[in-house]
Amino acid sequence: MTRHSLSLLAVAALAATSAHADEGMWMPKQLPQISKALKAGGLALDPAKLRELTDFPMGAVVAIPGCTASFVSPHGLAVTNHHCAYGSIQYNAKPERDLLKNGFYAATLADELPAAPGTRMWVTVDMKDVSAEVLNDKTRALTGKARTDAIEATEKRLVAACEADAGHRCNVHPFFGGLQYQLIKQMEIRDVRLVHAPATGVGLFGGDADNWVWPRHTGDYSFYRAYVGADGKPADFSQDNKPYAPRHHLKMPSSPLNQGDFVMVAGYPGHTNRHRLPTEVDFAFGWQQPTQARVMGEAIELIKAETAGRRDAEIKMANRLQGLQNYYKNLQGQQQSYDGSDILDRKTAGFEQLKAWVDGSPERRARYGADIAATESLIAERQTHTRAELLHTFMMPALLNSARQLYLIAQERAKPDAERKAGYQERDLPRLRAAQQSLDRRYDEPTDKRVAARFLAQYLAQPADTLNPAWVEVFGLKAGQDPAAIRARLDQVYADSKLSDSALRMAWLDKDVAAFKASDDAFIKAAVALYDDDRRLENRDKELGGKLQKAYAGVQQAMIDYHASRGEAVYPDANSTLRISYGKVEGRSPGTDGSTWTAFTTLRGIVAKHKGPDEAGGEFNAPAEQLAAIKARNFGKYYVKGLDSVPVNFLSTLDTTGGNSGSPVLNKNAELVGLLFDGTLDAVISDWDFNPKMVRSISVDARYMLWQMSTVDKTKRLLDEMGVR
Amino acid sequence: MTRHSLSLLAVAALAATSAHADEGMWMPKQLPQISKALKAGGLALDPAKLRELTDFPMGAVVAIPGCTASFVSPHGLAVTNHHCAYGSIQYNAKPERDLLKNGFYAATLADELPAAPGTRMWVTVDMKDVSAEVLNDKTRALTGKARTDAIEATEKRLVAACEADAGHRCNVHPFFGGLQYQLIKQMEIRDVRLVHAPATGVGLFGGDADNWVWPRHTGDYSFYRAYVGADGKPADFSQDNKPYAPRHHLKMPSSPLNQGDFVMVAGYPGHTNRHRLPTEVDFAFGWQQPTQARVMGEAIELIKAETAGRRDAEIKMANRLQGLQNYYKNLQGQQQSYDGSDILDRKTAGFEQLKAWVDGSPERRARYGADIAATESLIAERQTHTRAELLHTFMMPALLNSARQLYLIAQERAKPDAERKAGYQERDLPRLRAAQQSLDRRYDEPTDKRVAARFLAQYLAQPADTLNPAWVEVFGLKAGQDPAAIRARLDQVYADSKLSDSALRMAWLDKDVAAFKASDDAFIKAAVALYDDDRRLENRDKELGGKLQKAYAGVQQAMIDYHASRGEAVYPDANSTLRISYGKVEGRSPGTDGSTWTAFTTLRGIVAKHKGPDEAGGEFNAPAEQLAAIKARNFGKYYVKGLDSVPVNFLSTLDTTGGNSGSPVLNKNAELVGLLFDGTLDAVISDWDFNPKMVRSISVDARYMLWQMSTVDKTKRLLDEMGVR
Repeated sequence: MTRHSLSLLAVAALAATSAHADEGMWMPKQLPQISKALKAGGLALDPAKLRELTDFPMGAVVAIPGCTASFVSPHGLAVTNHHCAYGSIQYNAKPERDLLKNGFYAATLADELPAAPGTRMWVTVDMKDVSAEVLNDKTRALTGKARTDAIEATEKRLVAACEADAGHRCNVHPFFGGLQYQLIKQMEIRDVRLVHAPATGVGLFGGDADNWVWPRHTGDYSFYRAYVGADGKPADFSQDNKPYAPRHHLKMPSSPLNQGDFVMVAGYPGHTNRHRLPTEVDFAFGWQQPTQARVMGEAIELIKAETAGRRDAEIKMANRLQGLQNYYKNLQGQQQSYDGSDILDRKTAGFEQLKAWVDGSPERRARYGADIAATESLIAERQTHTRAELLHTFMMPALLNSARQLYLIAQERAKPDAERKAGYQERDLPRLRAAQQSLDRRYDEPTDKRVAARFLAQYLAQPADTLNPAWVEVFGLKAGQDPAAIRARLDQVYADSKLSDSALRMAWLDKDVAAFKASDDAFIKAAVALYDDDRRLENRDKELGGKLQKAYAGVQQAMIDYHASRGEAVYPDANSTLRISYGKVEGRSPGTDGSTWTAFTTLRGIVAKHKGPDEAGGEFNAPAEQLAAIKARNFGKYYVKGLDSVPVNFLSTLDTTGGNSGSPVLNKNAELVGLLFDGTLDAVISDWDFNPKMVRSISVDARYMLWQMSTVDKTKRLLDEMGVR
Repeated sequence: MTRHSLSLLAVAALAATSAHADEGMWMPKQLPQISKALKAGGLALDPAKLRELTDFPMGAVVAIPGCTASFVSPHGLAVTNHHCAYGSIQYNAKPERDLLKNGFYAATLADELPAAPGTRMWVTVDMKDVSAEVLNDKTRALTGKARTDAIEATEKRLVAACEADAGHRCNVHPFFGGLQYQLIKQMEIRDVRLVHAPATGVGLFGGDADNWVWPRHTGDYSFYRAYVGADGKPADFSQDNKPYAPRHHLKMPSSPLNQGDFVMVAGYPGHTNRHRLPTEVDFAFGWQQPTQARVMGEAIELIKAETAGRRDAEIKMANRLQGLQNYYKNLQGQQQSYDGSDILDRKTAGFEQLKAWVDGSPERRARYGADIAATESLIAERQTHTRAELLHTFMMPALLNSARQLYLIAQERAKPDAERKAGYQERDLPRLRAAQQSLDRRYDEPTDKRVAARFLAQYLAQPADTLNPAWVEVFGLKAGQDPAAIRARLDQVYADSKLSDSALRMAWLDKDVAAFKASDDAFIKAAVALYDDDRRLENRDKELGGKLQKAYAGVQQAMIDYHASRGEAVYPDANSTLRISYGKVEGRSPGTDGSTWTAFTTLRGIVAKHKGPDEAGGEFNAPAEQLAAIKARNFGKYYVKGLDSVPVNFLSTLDTTGGNSGSPVLNKNAELVGLLFDGTLDAVISDWDFNPKMVRSISVDARYMLWQMSTVDKTKRLLDEMGVR
């Protein structure tokens, strides 16, 4: 459930050092730095192979939206987490064909279903350091918005040149808080299909109750397949497409995984914040995250109350609800670890040491002093905006945000492609179109209205001088307006828009600015009215961003140099790019208070937790066929004598975070022994503060997946394809 | 939650041997047999002291309804479990003074509140073997109802003679399935008051979710006080009464309790079934318990649905609901352990061995053969009745059962006391009166009606020839009657009765048979109509009981003799009489699948589980003051360095069952180190089949109780009284 990329807090990050064994999400190019540790840990493969992106095994690892997947057959079959494919399962589910509940198995290639719009697979084929180009002399002389614009212009140019190679997506990613930039080139597979997902009672067994929890018994796996055109190149969906033939794929393990064994994981971790400035830590845990948690908790209750008993609405809101609940629980876990801890004290002390080191020589003071001084006040300015605007996400109707994006597309399309805003160029239109399309499957008007009304009322109840007049006036409301009036006004606004009609909404993708200005659709009108203010905020953020990039990169350089002076290696915070972590299969002591954790769970735990469809919200509802197979001890070759059962999930010391979900866990021979899918709530603070005693990742054991597929779900076609006898 | 006496299955029991270390609920008089093991285990006290009921420490241990308690001050202050005092807390709770939620602390003696009607404390002062008298030559020559009547007559005579000593309750208890009888004499304290109960967020922390679960963090303790008349003798409630001065009370521990330490528990375990015949085991798990669980599950849902949102009704039904949920969960746990196990095979093999041993000599065959042969068919006959009548408990309105009891009292009161039915003599009237009185606090008409209608419909839907005509016709219904007609008829019946009026109902306690026969109250009329049939069933059961007693005792004797021939000691199954178990503080491996269990939980676990009032049904809602004290590490002298916290609950190998709840757990010096309150769901099958690797009892650590009382609830008066500095 958990390790989706949590991008709400995505801000530039500071460096983290590898202070502990098994800590670190390493860039492939850094692997020579840790090859000794990898060999010592047990890796049988030549560590040098791991830095080759197009070689085995890295060539088999792919990114999908928010998660990681890996090829497991020569025919483009890819495995990821059930919760990563959840949107696609939901997209294909209907009340009369409830794939969420019953699972899905395509008996033949022809039965494979299109994944949710926007689903892609990205195979990283190149990473190149472009820092010198992005931060060229001309750009380095600029500040504020001019600097941001210059960086964006270079990025766009680099991306355009890279994407001249058709079928590829290229992006420039900042590392070390904007100190370095990497141009990453990925082959982009646009026709992705859903092949197999187990029943919810397997893939989501334990539901929200077990999310972030050990002992765990979730069969969190699903299968996609990559399709390409007849020419073998990426193509839009077509019945004529054929399965993609990856150059490499992962094989099932040839020897059993045991406690203490070496494991590594390759994937796309989202964001960590391990070396944030003390002021950022204080703001995150003193205000921002608790406030977000409070707001999300309310939103969760509203969605549940509004969809209760309407299965169609429940299906539509399921993905959103699951995401909110997951993040909500994560925030609570972080807060619980933080409160009463000495994290802020240690962060403060560490930053003071850095400053003392800088102040220790006139040369260092000259080099870093100004940036360190500037950073803190710039961060304070950004925090002021965050405070004032936190409710924006929840108070704006989905269709208004849709309309704002449609209007922005129209505005940008009027410019030459190279001059358009990043994210709104020709290359981005398919993604934007898919986002507009998928709204139908994820939109429930009564729920949307109820959430917007609640948080609009909260927003308007704040002191009038903290409000953005453009937001207040967009629906003709006033500061302090009472909830009943807000609800009445929203009723009218929703009634005066036709954007919920998919065909009408999609038609706006091709209309020009004049057409928007002439429209009397309530949400289109509101989007047009907000346009100037939206640009004002954008420019404000660019101005601040340009200043922050310069100062933050300076602090980052100081940090790297300081650690270098102490002989410490440094790895960058996670930023949704390909990384490798290594560690071993290991339980934990202490586990939950009153227990220690063993490394593996077994099928016995499924029987013990099973409660049927009516209790505990149906979250512990193992399929009858599965329970029967367990009762009959029908374990086959997946039986492990030491466990007297089949292993289900396992713990390891792997350093991971959101975005790693679905990542292949590999043994010393780079065979697929599991799929990473979660961590534990008492250690999610590791995104900010790594404690090797506490941090454990949770993976599905490949043996459980194969047992379930062969014994219960009988997905013979896929097992044959994966080479499982 | 758990270890209330579960008496629904109370039937004669077979012998159990002490096949394993730490197995056994020993009668005090048996202690010389195990004194070696007690010394070896670590007992510092002379084991011989433990057999003296009126000496220290046994003189401090008392029975209360369904549970055990112990004196902890020279002024009659007694500690038991929160869930054992739950009925009294509920009895005193009102929507405007919600003692269930907020807890209760009597700041002075004058503030102590009367416990629920019927609450008693029984101090066992004597146990005497009366087998020769009960089973005298004349009785041994009888069978069937005549034998049952003869046994009851002797019992009544013995009880009457014993109770000539005013202020005492005496009972004759069968041991070894009616092979032996003990006359037990107990001082009966009738004025019991509620002194202190922590908030639900402490005393019931974890609620139903954590019931039968480890790791556990429940502060399951509460305090009663025994009051007596000015003459120091038991008396009815009066403002003039004064605290009772027990001859002995338990002291708080002088040294810390550690893992591996010797512990023992003295209490009143309800019933075990460790050596049932295979046919009984098969019936219990093949039909009776699964059926009971199904019916209880439905009743739980009905009660919840009917009381939802009516706090007054919720309070009234809370005790019943808690009892049902507890037993329901217990039954499910037993069934889960049983299904797929080899228990029945082992029981069958064991019984075959016994029969082979009997058949191995003509003398043994002559002595036991006939009883063994008879027992199985008699049991089959009883099972037929059980099948036909299982729904009776749930389908009869509470007020009808009340009326049946009132009418039976009137019938019996017309006879000389010595001739009255056991349980309806003068000595029993106060108890019967209290039961009628307490109905007010535990009765909610809409709920009662809904439950009765549901199960009456299920009863009437069974094949007509299996139904009892008297029960079918009591409300003028018919076999196969549809639910709507049943509900309509019940509406009329309830409307035509005034028994819900407490004063009117209590007045019936003093009326004669003629008054009942003349009444037009619907429930009184129904009770009169059922009277003859109720007596028919009673006589049927006496007839069968007489035959079974004879045969079962013979099987029991065979079992004891068989074990004696193998040199094995035998202890009787639990039967709600005073027993002693011993063992040690010890975790468990395996724990829950994926974990091992450590011996202690700590305050950290409370913080980790806390969810506030709105989530998880408010079951994990620790008081804010407690959380603040934990956060401030305000641990005082209850801090344990090895745990870096205060211990909350602990595991031990003590052999216990329902009825042991509230029992004092004693260290080697017989100091109070904890209160026993639960076991774990994956080992409740131990009532039938003891597995020393799996069975662990859960206790509140005395240090947690004292920490909470001193640091959070500030119950200084009680701590002073208990000698805690």
